[in-house]
Amino acid sequence: MSTSRINTAMRLGVAGLGTVGRGVVKLVQDEGPMIAARCGRPLAVTAVSARDRARDRGLDLSGVRWEEDANALAAADDVDVVVELIGGSVGPARDLIERTLAAGKPVVTANKALLALHGGDLAVLAAKHGAPLRFEAAVAGGIPIVKSLREGLVGNRLTRLYGILNGTCNYVLSAMESSQRSFEDILGEAQRLGYAESDPGFDISGTDTAHKLAILAGLGFGMPVDFHALHVEGIGHITLEDIGFAREFGYRIKLLGVAERKAEGVRVRVHPALVALGTPIAEVSGVMNAVMVEAQPVDRTFFEGPGAGAGPTASAVLADIADLARGAGDHPAYLEPGGAPELQPMAHHQGAYYVRLHVIDRPGVMAAISQVLAQADVSIESIIQRGRNPGESVPIVMRTHETQESVMTEALAEIAAINAVSGPPCLIRIEPV
Amino acid sequence: MSTSRINTAMRLGVAGLGTVGRGVVKLVQDEGPMIAARCGRPLAVTAVSARDRARDRGLDLSGVRWEEDANALAAADDVDVVVELIGGSVGPARDLIERTLAAGKPVVTANKALLALHGGDLAVLAAKHGAPLRFEAAVAGGIPIVKSLREGLVGNRLTRLYGILNGTCNYVLSAMESSQRSFEDILGEAQRLGYAESDPGFDISGTDTAHKLAILAGLGFGMPVDFHALHVEGIGHITLEDIGFAREFGYRIKLLGVAERKAEGVRVRVHPALVALGTPIAEVSGVMNAVMVEAQPVDRTFFEGPGAGAGPTASAVLADIADLARGAGDHPAYLEPGGAPELQPMAHHQGAYYVRLHVIDRPGVMAAISQVLAQADVSIESIIQRGRNPGESVPIVMRTHETQESVMTEALAEIAAINAVSGPPCLIRIEPV
Repeated sequence: MSTSRINTAMRLGVAGLGTVGRGVVKLVQDEGPMIAARCGRPLAVTAVSARDRARDRGLDLSGVRWEEDANALAAADDVDVVVELIGGSVGPARDLIERTLAAGKPVVTANKALLALHGGDLAVLAAKHGAPLRFEAAVAGGIPIVKSLREGLVGNRLTRLYGILNGTCNYVLSAMESSQRSFEDILGEAQRLGYAESDPGFDISGTDTAHKLAILAGLGFGMPVDFHALHVEGIGHITLEDIGFAREFGYRIKLLGVAERKAEGVRVRVHPALVALGTPIAEVSGVMNAVMVEAQPVDRTFFEGPGAGAGPTASAVLADIADLARGAGDHPAYLEPGGAPELQPMAHHQGAYYVRLHVIDRPGVMAAISQVLAQADVSIESIIQRGRNPGESVPIVMRTHETQESVMTEALAEIAAINAVSGPPCLIRIEPV
Repeated sequence: MSTSRINTAMRLGVAGLGTVGRGVVKLVQDEGPMIAARCGRPLAVTAVSARDRARDRGLDLSGVRWEEDANALAAADDVDVVVELIGGSVGPARDLIERTLAAGKPVVTANKALLALHGGDLAVLAAKHGAPLRFEAAVAGGIPIVKSLREGLVGNRLTRLYGILNGTCNYVLSAMESSQRSFEDILGEAQRLGYAESDPGFDISGTDTAHKLAILAGLGFGMPVDFHALHVEGIGHITLEDIGFAREFGYRIKLLGVAERKAEGVRVRVHPALVALGTPIAEVSGVMNAVMVEAQPVDRTFFEGPGAGAGPTASAVLADIADLARGAGDHPAYLEPGGAPELQPMAHHQGAYYVRLHVIDRPGVMAAISQVLAQADVSIESIIQRGRNPGESVPIVMRTHETQESVMTEALAEIAAINAVSGPPCLIRIEPV
């Protein structure tokens, strides 16, 4: 690679000029002297590639070469580092990254989907060609969490990591609570405000959180993570009623990504969770992201910051670029010695549960439900029927003591089959934080 | 320097085997294979130096050379990096660091007092000899804040940074509030629990916070910071009464270190502050440390973690060692282009204030106080006399709108001179967070 510390500028080829790409080009252009002073070498954007050349992006691109084909950046002699901001796990982004690494040239990318699905293969390719592959911006935007895990906490053994990794979901849940409006209402508002995509499926389903969590788990535990083996739930089924009951019990509902090391292996899961009010993670509101790292010997370290947007993401991309300019060597392949831990299925999860049902208010229903749980050996911490409405539907809310996921799933299926139970039960895990 | 990435071990000489020194040696010995895998090169402690060789430290030091004189580590051929954990701003620690840098050898240190007072000179010496000087462990223990400021947020322009940088003070203030016991009571308990030194003066006076803040301000604003020019107040004058009034107003009292960039220059100050309940900084309790970084384009990023103790500090020391082992190049000298901003005196500070007085309860006192403030052009947001006790002492509590520190100081001196005012007024700044 040609990024040893010299006085000539490190030349960047930027692929993708959406919000983030424009933010990166602008930052390099506006803060050139500051960044050069800090990393000991000037930076220059020498070439860019994007879909529509005619579009006005508010950038001064005079003196910057336009490439119609992003792949040209991989081969270009006047590009030392390719900055991939096209996005997407298939198509041109992957093609560009593979070609760039194969040419022995460093890549900086914000592409979480690609890394979550194909990070292992790309890491092998990068190592083979001695080309750094850097992705601070792929997880939690403005929080330097990739660097902190890999470098700041390098002497630690990770035991658990959990976080709020999707600003859209956190905005929706926060706003539902604060304004007492429904999921659909708030999501619509978030779309109008630009906090949610016009197609919010990736966010709301937990997929985006899972992409980021897969990357962090892979780094933190030094293991390849099979994305398709993760347990992923979204927030589409969370109601105002659940948010209210959670609060009554002293909790708040957050969409969490959790990766934890157990004796048997590693569990990586994305699902809504009840977290105790007053804890750092429960107090993260709006579009912010946050990560709690539990590790030895550091104990617990907490990070909070904006997870998306042009500024925070450009900040993260620049961190990677500056490291390359500074000649900060690459990280060795990320497998821990002694063999990678195994990914454990969700059925093995152990924890406490919140369950909300709607039942027809008539004698014997609560007894029937309790009996199912007793037979499954699930210990109930509390069970509440809220209100009376003979012959009509009323909510029943339960909290269990710690039990196993597979047991809980079976018991819930039996409960759902009870005649008086209307609609599917809502199960939310209680996460100790 | 001899730390290029090779397969032979990077050899460490550790000076000082107190809690942190022992933690570092133990971590290198226990987690050798993991750390080697992560930084691409094994580590080995080849020599140590401490005061009393006979003392049992619970370490296996067989095969590790003992040096009676720490300075021998600077010259030793079998020491690639000197890890200075002796502490103290004068004496052997400084001597060792200077000799090591002069020998062109990297130094890793946790010595906040030395860096706060002489960091500028040491940085010049390090640059002259091309020897890295690293100090992640000097600030906020387990939080990788030095790395985050220098590298993770390298593309940002810092506008304000504030934090809780002393665990002892935060423990005392948190415990006063939660147990409603006096400063003296809680401090005594903290000493018994080992959360406070037997001589807690450095902590309680704000000096330790100021040491860490000076380091962060220097890094964050790319300027030399004259430690003696900083405004430093401690927490010895904070009473339960103040904590109670603050809470009533919706605030909590924290000892903050604040460094902020204004048009005229940079202000760096340590003092107790009222911070709004529910904000991240207000919710940091017990011995934890925390730092909020406000910068463009990242906006706001918040870090929280354990600030001291063997484990967190060893974690930070290892981060520096691993960077050196990985061959992660050093940072250029830390002065921003365009000249360093000037340090502004506290008299120029502008903000809102909380003031608590004790006055003899008789007619006309509040009018006299209000008149002094009116003449000084200080706008009062609220003024409360709590309780009635004719002829005896009662508290009066005021909040002002934003005003200038010098004006406030003069007005308070006049108020203190009013006959009915007993004892010195207690002034606490309100910090918008």
